Amino acid sequence: MSKHFTALADLSVPTIMALLDRAHFFFHQTTSHLPRVLEHKVIANVFFEPSTRTRISFEMAAKRLGAEVINFDLSNSSVKKGESLYDTLRTLEAIGSDALVLRHADDRIFETLGPKLKTPLVNAGAGKHEHPSQGLLDLFTLQREFKRLEGLHIAILGDIRHSRVAGSMMLVAQRLGIKVSLCAADEFLPVQLPGNCSKQTLDHVLPDVDAVMCLRNQFERHEGLDMDNAAFHRDWGLTSARAARMKPSAIIMHPAPVNRGIEISDELVEAPASRIFQQMENGVFVRMSILEWILKRDSL
Amino acid sequence: MSKHFTALADLSVPTIMALLDRAHFFFHQTTSHLPRVLEHKVIANVFFEPSTRTRISFEMAAKRLGAEVINFDLSNSSVKKGESLYDTLRTLEAIGSDALVLRHADDRIFETLGPKLKTPLVNAGAGKHEHPSQGLLDLFTLQREFKRLEGLHIAILGDIRHSRVAGSMMLVAQRLGIKVSLCAADEFLPVQLPGNCSKQTLDHVLPDVDAVMCLRNQFERHEGLDMDNAAFHRDWGLTSARAARMKPSAIIMHPAPVNRGIEISDELVEAPASRIFQQMENGVFVRMSILEWILKRDSL
Amino acid sequence: MSKHFTALADLSVPTIMALLDRAHFFFHQTTSHLPRVLEHKVIANVFFEPSTRTRISFEMAAKRLGAEVINFDLSNSSVKKGESLYDTLRTLEAIGSDALVLRHADDRIFETLGPKLKTPLVNAGAGKHEHPSQGLLDLFTLQREFKRLEGLHIAILGDIRHSRVAGSMMLVAQRLGIKVSLCAADEFLPVQLPGNCSKQTLDHVLPDVDAVMCLRNQFERHEGLDMDNAAFHRDWGLTSARAARMKPSAIIMHPAPVNRGIEISDELVEAPASRIFQQMENGVFVRMSILEWILKRDSL
Repeated sequence: MSKHFTALADLSVPTIMALLDRAHFFFHQTTSHLPRVLEHKVIANVFFEPSTRTRISFEMAAKRLGAEVINFDLSNSSVKKGESLYDTLRTLEAIGSDALVLRHADDRIFETLGPKLKTPLVNAGAGKHEHPSQGLLDLFTLQREFKRLEGLHIAILGDIRHSRVAGSMMLVAQRLGIKVSLCAADEFLPVQLPGNCSKQTLDHVLPDVDAVMCLRNQFERHEGLDMDNAAFHRDWGLTSARAARMKPSAIIMHPAPVNRGIEISDELVEAPASRIFQQMENGVFVRMSILEWILKRDSL
Repeated sequence: MSKHFTALADLSVPTIMALLDRAHFFFHQTTSHLPRVLEHKVIANVFFEPSTRTRISFEMAAKRLGAEVINFDLSNSSVKKGESLYDTLRTLEAIGSDALVLRHADDRIFETLGPKLKTPLVNAGAGKHEHPSQGLLDLFTLQREFKRLEGLHIAILGDIRHSRVAGSMMLVAQRLGIKVSLCAADEFLPVQLPGNCSKQTLDHVLPDVDAVMCLRNQFERHEGLDMDNAAFHRDWGLTSARAARMKPSAIIMHPAPVNRGIEISDELVEAPASRIFQQMENGVFVRMSILEWILKRDSL
Repeated sequence: MSKHFTALADLSVPTIMALLDRAHFFFHQTTSHLPRVLEHKVIANVFFEPSTRTRISFEMAAKRLGAEVINFDLSNSSVKKGESLYDTLRTLEAIGSDALVLRHADDRIFETLGPKLKTPLVNAGAGKHEHPSQGLLDLFTLQREFKRLEGLHIAILGDIRHSRVAGSMMLVAQRLGIKVSLCAADEFLPVQLPGNCSKQTLDHVLPDVDAVMCLRNQFERHEGLDMDNAAFHRDWGLTSARAARMKPSAIIMHPAPVNRGIEISDELVEAPASRIFQQMENGVFVRMSILEWILKRDSL
């Protein structure tokens, strides 16, 4: 098994369930009673793309378990002097980092560089395909709400094709018995759909789903595309009228940051059905679980 | 009482005196004997305006008491992706920050956002009105020197109208029995003066004051104004000639960073009467006191 | 003796050997058994020039020994408000930093500012002359390989004149009985050569040397110079053909970051003879030694 935490697609179902169980254990501790299992470990946060939320979430997870964190600041880095990504990671390995939490635009980073590194890499949203810690926190959020995963039905809406969040979820949902309805214009759908995923209109599936997962509109990836935000909201967004048609038990999710009024109506962000800020809370517990697993697997 | 630390104006005199007493307690410990009262706490420094001095002072205070610190780097933040300030603060709350130390240009941040947040906010210089941790360190510096506050007479000179440092001091001085003489051109004076504050010429009050508090000329806020630095120094600054007319026991204060040769003569910055660098030292002790109070109030 | 760690030139041979011995001691501990000798110390990393590698190496050394680290981010600093370097360092001293690890372009920083500061300064590559922690790690690397320093013969190639790495090595090598051959075009040689250093062609000395120390081509310092990288590599770089003529026991060193294919052939960077990434590992141990020495000297 790879020593890296690269993709949910690489993990067995029992491993995923064990990671989630451990996250629930951390969730039930008060912060002062969390086990300091990562004491004397030093974790490097290596972010080549800006992402305060994910960086800080990993930093919090590491510190709560007793680890030290070194933040690698891209703008101040030797990368400016023309150093290769490989040399940068090898440097962070050489100085004794116990794990490298990595964010980078390049898809092939784990395939090409992973085998050359002894230090475990943790995918904190690298490339276009997977954002596995986000996938895990989405599963955790569903479990925390419904006490189960199998048999749930979730709708994903928005720019699914460009979303690594959706990528992680679609791939793992099939193996966990979660039914996924993809609700988006054709140009935002993946070219190939996994078996348990089908294209649906949101209005059709709304009364049946247990959760609506909104995605962030990635404006920065649609340069040149003439987006009409109001039209997008009306045609493809989660409006208040649509939310009113959800089951009383159903929840609203979003990986954040949110574009209020575009993929989701402003007043839904903190509506009773919303778990958006709870997802951020949950993210710290699953990242504790990931870091412990990657660093202490041999002794667990 | 608000759970936030927003303004000295909101604190009772006994609370202010208790905060100062506790700062004196910390001051008298050696660093290795400081009580680790903030162990297992994680404090987020959230700076939307640059301020190395204040950020580092809070960071030092937190670490000396055993807390962990997460620095929120604006330039790398999701704010770039269009996220609102509220969403950013709610995110930092959701990931489990125990307190948010906040620097921001907006005056209404505490009024409008404070009530929506469960996590205590600490004003590290937000808006134009108050900079309460600086106000507290100024009081601490006076106490350390004179063993009392009541009956002291201080002169404030420079750009009083645009100074949140002066704002905090003027408001609190009245309640503590400190007499304040404001020595500045009319365009630099506040529109309304608190009861204990009067406009004076520096030359008139110099022989009587216990402390001269110079303010930093905020060039960045006077865009377009044609400032003649030499004339300003001659007319309104603390020159060596003026300093020579102070009482032997009187001290010189400045919140720093200093514009040497403008609001204060270069050779006075480290003159025997200057407490400018001592003020920075004192700042760490009052910030320890503030952080402990905000985080441990219920158990104190 | 100066309380600062400024230059290897200032240290006696017994002091240098003691620092190296202590680094070897740290090297032989597992990370969880390293003595926490710097607990309750707070070290400020003050980097006015970008250098991820050195900053992170010092940060790792400090944290492994139990110290806290405050990173001073230049881009967010009050230096922008026109504050002098002296005032910045005095501020970091005033808030209670136990040591200031300093990187700055100015050569005279230690001479002019050192005597005015009570807090020990550690040269992390300041000015053009010395980079003493790099010099110490180069010595450590030679010791780790050859169990001795005296009698070794090393070749330095590349832009020796502009290299503070070469500066530190040339000055100390003479006192330690290391023979140095400088292999570079005249415009890259120092104006004056220390006694044990002589100009040589690399091809002539290759079969005799114990180590080849390649330097990084400092493109940023050669603005306007018309550099032909391929010609430089052919005439002055360590090519694979040249490396094949080295003794079997000889090693390849480079302070990094590496310009692959310019001063050194790409395939040599991780060749069996290369100690380039091991040097980065070694850097943490010598920096532990430096920090302990500077902070605990009185009690050692």
